[in-house]
Amino acid sequence: MERLSKARVAAWRALDDAAERRTSGRIRLEGPHLVEESARLGLVETILAVGPVAAGEWAMKAPEAEVLEVSDDDLARVVEQKTPAGVAAVARRPDRAAIEDLGRVRAPVLVLEAVQDPGNVGTLVRTAAAFGVRMVVTTPGTADPMGIRALRASAGALLRVPVAEATLDRVLEAARAASKLVWVPDVAAGDDYRAVKPASDFVLLASNEGAGTKVVPGAPGTRRVTIPMERNTESLNVGAAVAVILAHWRR
Amino acid sequence: MERLSKARVAAWRALDDAAERRTSGRIRLEGPHLVEESARLGLVETILAVGPVAAGEWAMKAPEAEVLEVSDDDLARVVEQKTPAGVAAVARRPDRAAIEDLGRVRAPVLVLEAVQDPGNVGTLVRTAAAFGVRMVVTTPGTADPMGIRALRASAGALLRVPVAEATLDRVLEAARAASKLVWVPDVAAGDDYRAVKPASDFVLLASNEGAGTKVVPGAPGTRRVTIPMERNTESLNVGAAVAVILAHWRR
Repeated sequence: MERLSKARVAAWRALDDAAERRTSGRIRLEGPHLVEESARLGLVETILAVGPVAAGEWAMKAPEAEVLEVSDDDLARVVEQKTPAGVAAVARRPDRAAIEDLGRVRAPVLVLEAVQDPGNVGTLVRTAAAFGVRMVVTTPGTADPMGIRALRASAGALLRVPVAEATLDRVLEAARAASKLVWVPDVAAGDDYRAVKPASDFVLLASNEGAGTKVVPGAPGTRRVTIPMERNTESLNVGAAVAVILAHWRR
Repeated sequence: MERLSKARVAAWRALDDAAERRTSGRIRLEGPHLVEESARLGLVETILAVGPVAAGEWAMKAPEAEVLEVSDDDLARVVEQKTPAGVAAVARRPDRAAIEDLGRVRAPVLVLEAVQDPGNVGTLVRTAAAFGVRMVVTTPGTADPMGIRALRASAGALLRVPVAEATLDRVLEAARAASKLVWVPDVAAGDDYRAVKPASDFVLLASNEGAGTKVVPGAPGTRRVTIPMERNTESLNVGAAVAVILAHWRR
């Protein structure tokens, strides 16, 4: 069994920081699902596993990775979850996309407009991937999609779907250049989503949880859509709205 | 301005505990949206507000409540959020429903089968309420819907929609007695949901995030439904699946 040095623990914990993930090009993963996915994608570098059997199994699943057998206590020092699921890893950050790719993707694109909760970021991308979205763009103010909470909520989808960063203006400009319509969910003032069928490669905007979107109504190349709801005291969260619209797109 | 005594702070914080909420019949709320909703529903008892202007406004909005003007620091002692939104309250717990009511509700019923994350509980009920669900049932293992995280994620819907508690067996029995079909979302082995139209008062099951449902395939009065997705590496979280099925029901 390997004893983790303080320096090594510090290096792992440093990856809790978005800036550190960016400069190092590395991310931290925990739990069997994410670690397995990173191994499948050839991203994993180091795996910490509890117990010799588990360590042996991970060495088989990820032959290119360094696998260390560690104690429960040592694993607890490098993970965020209260009940660590017996395995954690450091992996290479997946390649990012560029906003210019928006015109080349032949599938819906999801834009996260300052979505601030990492759990929402992950859930949105999980839903989007399940329905066939092939590119995600985050605008400033969006929680880092490479943080552990976002990655966990995405069930690994954030390791697979390319993510670009761009300002909202740049997104709208790229969509117009590519002749892709941007759907902007709106609580009340849009067209009933059921009456309109999106093209095969539209852009769907998921906006900030509290402030909503900054896209001006009537902005060229955009369309407001509304999901009809019970009375007006009720509302949908952004994850539910995106799920409903993408399911409609797939009908 | 009122200085909060240690005893009073302790009494508020005690409401973090589900058992205490149950025995006292009281719940803790924070942020303007939940407090306003509890005032509208006549549930609020005591409001803590920062600043004399806010305290005056809350006294107008909730004339039946005791309103105390407190300091920022004192408010921070009784709230869970890192950035308290200037107001918190203690309210009466909304009346619970009984499982027997399932037969009387002329709208869809949502069953939370051991949904363990309070954020998921709240989001599910928010989505359900937006699409017209009029009753929720929780089975053992479900996070307390009256905890602050669930209430917040529900955007107040949990104050409005009656919630019953029952075992899964009891739910299935009540649904059969009322001739209501129970829809059980299933990742792969169900009928394509788009091909079947639920009745106006069906029962929709949202199952545990990790373990899935304990409803046996083919159980009388149940129907497995599947939402088709991209390849098989992808999956939907329970909130997205419920949103998609309820939106389908409303078409």
